[in-house]
Amino acid sequence: MSPTPSPAPLRLGIAGLGTVGIGVVKIVQNHPDLIALRSGRPVQITAICARDRTRNRDADLSGYAWVDRASDLALRDDVDVVVELIGGDEGPARELIELALENGKDVVTANKALLAVHGQALAERAESRGRTIRFEAAVAGGIPVIKAMTESLAGNRIKRVMGVMNGTCNYILTRMQSAGLPYDTVFEEARRLGYLEADPTLDVGGIDASHKLAILASIAFGTRVAFEGVEIEGIERVSIDDISRAADMGYRIKLLGVAQMTGRGLEQRMSPCLVPCDSPLGQLEGGTNMVVIEGDAVGQIVLRGAGAGEGPTASAVMSDVVELARGVRMPVFGQPATTLGTPQPARTAVPAAYYLRLTLADKPGALAKVATVLGDAGISIDRMRQYGHASGAAPVLIVTHKTTPEAIDHAMQALPRTGVVEGDPVELRIEEV
Amino acid sequence: MSPTPSPAPLRLGIAGLGTVGIGVVKIVQNHPDLIALRSGRPVQITAICARDRTRNRDADLSGYAWVDRASDLALRDDVDVVVELIGGDEGPARELIELALENGKDVVTANKALLAVHGQALAERAESRGRTIRFEAAVAGGIPVIKAMTESLAGNRIKRVMGVMNGTCNYILTRMQSAGLPYDTVFEEARRLGYLEADPTLDVGGIDASHKLAILASIAFGTRVAFEGVEIEGIERVSIDDISRAADMGYRIKLLGVAQMTGRGLEQRMSPCLVPCDSPLGQLEGGTNMVVIEGDAVGQIVLRGAGAGEGPTASAVMSDVVELARGVRMPVFGQPATTLGTPQPARTAVPAAYYLRLTLADKPGALAKVATVLGDAGISIDRMRQYGHASGAAPVLIVTHKTTPEAIDHAMQALPRTGVVEGDPVELRIEEV
Repeated sequence: MSPTPSPAPLRLGIAGLGTVGIGVVKIVQNHPDLIALRSGRPVQITAICARDRTRNRDADLSGYAWVDRASDLALRDDVDVVVELIGGDEGPARELIELALENGKDVVTANKALLAVHGQALAERAESRGRTIRFEAAVAGGIPVIKAMTESLAGNRIKRVMGVMNGTCNYILTRMQSAGLPYDTVFEEARRLGYLEADPTLDVGGIDASHKLAILASIAFGTRVAFEGVEIEGIERVSIDDISRAADMGYRIKLLGVAQMTGRGLEQRMSPCLVPCDSPLGQLEGGTNMVVIEGDAVGQIVLRGAGAGEGPTASAVMSDVVELARGVRMPVFGQPATTLGTPQPARTAVPAAYYLRLTLADKPGALAKVATVLGDAGISIDRMRQYGHASGAAPVLIVTHKTTPEAIDHAMQALPRTGVVEGDPVELRIEEV
Repeated sequence: MSPTPSPAPLRLGIAGLGTVGIGVVKIVQNHPDLIALRSGRPVQITAICARDRTRNRDADLSGYAWVDRASDLALRDDVDVVVELIGGDEGPARELIELALENGKDVVTANKALLAVHGQALAERAESRGRTIRFEAAVAGGIPVIKAMTESLAGNRIKRVMGVMNGTCNYILTRMQSAGLPYDTVFEEARRLGYLEADPTLDVGGIDASHKLAILASIAFGTRVAFEGVEIEGIERVSIDDISRAADMGYRIKLLGVAQMTGRGLEQRMSPCLVPCDSPLGQLEGGTNMVVIEGDAVGQIVLRGAGAGEGPTASAVMSDVVELARGVRMPVFGQPATTLGTPQPARTAVPAAYYLRLTLADKPGALAKVATVLGDAGISIDRMRQYGHASGAAPVLIVTHKTTPEAIDHAMQALPRTGVVEGDPVELRIEEV
């Protein structure tokens, strides 16, 4: 073969040199030949930006131009792609991305919060300029779920997408179960281990996972990201009691996100749910993430891997970088942003079985009163367990047959009025997986 | 927005209208708008070819030109992409693909056998003409493993790839376990259910799965497909005894393919292995497939889904079609075919724990003789179970600590010479997953 001229390298400007940013630097430095072969051209880092220039970062950064303001990366002629790893849904991250698109650069980001809030505007801005924003790293770390949804399942009408997408919550829930420890203790443990965001409600309140769910729902159903439409409940009220009782009945409790399009609109919920302990989701331990996608042709696809961390997240960033190096430039959400529909948010109405736990006073006819309330609400019982009356009041577990969330709400309001239920009854949805 | 001219449709010629071909027709017919939005242009079928033109195929084919010889699809001006779903590593499938590439058409195929044998030559032919061959459907049905390897993990040096990639074998093994039935009975059952290829050794002999493994290894390690380098053992000698005993020890038996690059060369093996029953691979039931990929950055990624069937396989074909419609044209094996190395095939040398089952004569000192043989071979014992002597001879199960395949071979040859082992001892590798 006659020698062909070397193709021009793809030049990256990286903003943010935390765990993920350094992970990207290491991959680019460690695998230049591999990446060039796979990309069809070399990939180089030309400029970088981070808050603290003097910090020791376990990587040789001497070959790169330092800029003081992230947005300066968007102005440089030696940057083709801006890699935004600053985070946050406003401020320098948003400013940088907007400016980069203005200046004809493509963007790779891991910023789920920004995409959940401003994804539509940014996508329209990018596409009107013939640019794109790629964000494989924003959802479920190293798991290639964005590519699977936008490309691999392009021939499918997606029926449902769900997943465990916050490793910290899954760590807390599995640790509570394995060690038999209460929530508060494990929460403090996770904080000491550095697993929690600076604002821990982003994790345990389900917000981070809901950002990811809203992004997946947008791609799945061809609708604008509608984070505000997610019904969110965190894991703060999950008790060790419920974890143990659910295990007795063959279930695990997971912070599960589910999005599905129904005749009433787009249901998006993030909540602690029961899943069968022998299902792929039920078997998920610790910080691992899992996404389950159901398409009308493919059936059920399960993707599992590390949801965070230097290597996995940087791997996802590099997947996007290599695509851009290959010259592939897709619509941000898999179809032109201007064609994305406006979803009608719907409260969860899809029926499910439910797990109920309540404490019954030791009075004659108590159980009959509970059964009557459930029957009046149209709820039938699949399994019931009443435990001993050691303290004069008995824990009762009920697994219902499939029923509607409305019926459950109705029963949950009626139960305290029976006079035989002590404290607040607990209800958890059992998601079919 | 001012109206833009409609982009030209991508026109498909489909050869082979079996299960998968009809699945593709149905997707194209059922989701034209979805596919056009995601592809950026319409996708149409213009011409089709199948052996029997009169067969009722559960799809309206009246709008398509019928051609009598598959290779005629390659000559038509109204075909942009040839979809080859005929199968077989020679004959009309190969002829069609070669002719299509000659005539400037891209190819989508599900033909693992053809790629395993002629992949390198076909890839070079395609790439020298600026065309490509895509084959997501060739490996693990609806699971997007080719895309994950070539694109999502492009920033990783792949360390190991493995998987359960023949649903029929996994069906047989899980059915043997759940029903307690011997191999021959379940094999006949699978034949009656139509689960087996016309030549069943392609399935139960591990050949079909090995084709897939060789393709994955090529992408993973940047080497030419080396099907002839796969050490293949089928499931024919897996006994219900071993399945039950392995379960007692916490393992499942799976037909597992493993490819890894070592200092000695490329190890590729397809064999019945033990995996922990609580691992993702161990939990795989029935016809489902699973691929596990380990990269130096991403860690372990697990992909699970239907490995065959109309919808899942057609979904994978459509993923490739949509990519071509978008104008994405990658090297066939993820990097230019001329840059793929020639792998040095290596027999398995990576150490592992092993499961041994042997029948011990009821003689004094019998177990000591076995232990001596193992000790002489440098094999140490992790766990041992001797069962009762009901028939005058006792089944003994041994799980070894990690040892080399050579040591195991040595011991397996020496054991019959002790005079205390009845029949042939069984050894199965325990793969770490």
